[in-house]
Amino acid sequence: MKLLGLDPGLRRTGWGLIEAKGNRLRYIAAGVISSKDRLSLAERLVQIHDGVAETIAHYCPDEAAVETVFVNNNPIATVKLCHARGVVLLVPARVGLSVSEYEPTLIKKTVVGTGHANKVQVALMVCRLLHGPGPGRRHHNTDDATDALAVAICHAHYRTTSLRLTAQGRMFNSDGAAGEPES
Amino acid sequence: MKLLGLDPGLRRTGWGLIEAKGNRLRYIAAGVISSKDRLSLAERLVQIHDGVAETIAHYCPDEAAVETVFVNNNPIATVKLCHARGVVLLVPARVGLSVSEYEPTLIKKTVVGTGHANKVQVALMVCRLLHGPGPGRRHHNTDDATDALAVAICHAHYRTTSLRLTAQGRMFNSDGAAGEPES
Repeated sequence: MKLLGLDPGLRRTGWGLIEAKGNRLRYIAAGVISSKDRLSLAERLVQIHDGVAETIAHYCPDEAAVETVFVNNNPIATVKLCHARGVVLLVPARVGLSVSEYEPTLIKKTVVGTGHANKVQVALMVCRLLHGPGPGRRHHNTDDATDALAVAICHAHYRTTSLRLTAQGRMFNSDGAAGEPES
Repeated sequence: MKLLGLDPGLRRTGWGLIEAKGNRLRYIAAGVISSKDRLSLAERLVQIHDGVAETIAHYCPDEAAVETVFVNNNPIATVKLCHARGVVLLVPARVGLSVSEYEPTLIKKTVVGTGHANKVQVALMVCRLLHGPGPGRRHHNTDDATDALAVAICHAHYRTTSLRLTAQGRMFNSDGAAGEPES
């Protein structure tokens, strides 16, 4: 079972692919899809689309998982992130993959043991859980790729349980409260 | 010159197509793409994608224009809108159309004469500017389709001028100030 984790961003979208056999996890590949600042927003979204689509076509994952949005105090950054995230959710769903969503705190808690872990702690545990030199010594690695591997690990843990966030397109605000109003 | 206006929303995305010959505008078609509440966010984005893609394939517009995001006091609604908007910007850009972006207040000012016009005023002026019974008496019409026609009219007005918002993917907050931070 190949699981694709995705960590969306307008400038950099991380992706990480792992194989899950029972409780055993194995690193397959990870990388970052970048978009160019000088392009229009629509053109940058095309770059993200094409990068995710190529990754899926190349590695043929069985399922995908994406980090949810944490609405913070920077609405402009949130707006940009959500444009990218819309495209990142779209691509695997268009080719029929199930797309699960996980909160950042749940991902950290699953991988490190605490929902407030920092990036170094996440990277160390991603390396340890994937039984190898880890993504830190591989090409393409950045924090975004490591975060995407953490999403994939979280999905491997919860994919068969009711804790998986699916169907409702739930997104959480800074209080952790789900909201439903939409346009 | 056929111009496609798009008014994005997760539940309903309006679209409106007009023909612009010099200063003369003509209504071609308008409609609404709906997504089903019961589906996952990723599946709803696929519905929006397919609806916009089918509209473009059927009518072959020359250019597209999309309303910018107005970041209001409802962050959850803004988050959902921006996911849909990412997909709405993506689809025309993927097939090589230029995608312009216009602020809501500029659209209203262009169509009605004031940036604080209400929906009834916008609908009346859209009808008048399109020289006919207008979209109000046609099937498929809703506020979203009318708003999309207003975007197309605004684009017809500004497409050759420097007032068009392109390239930088600019988005505005409630103070009208452009912001650039992103992830």
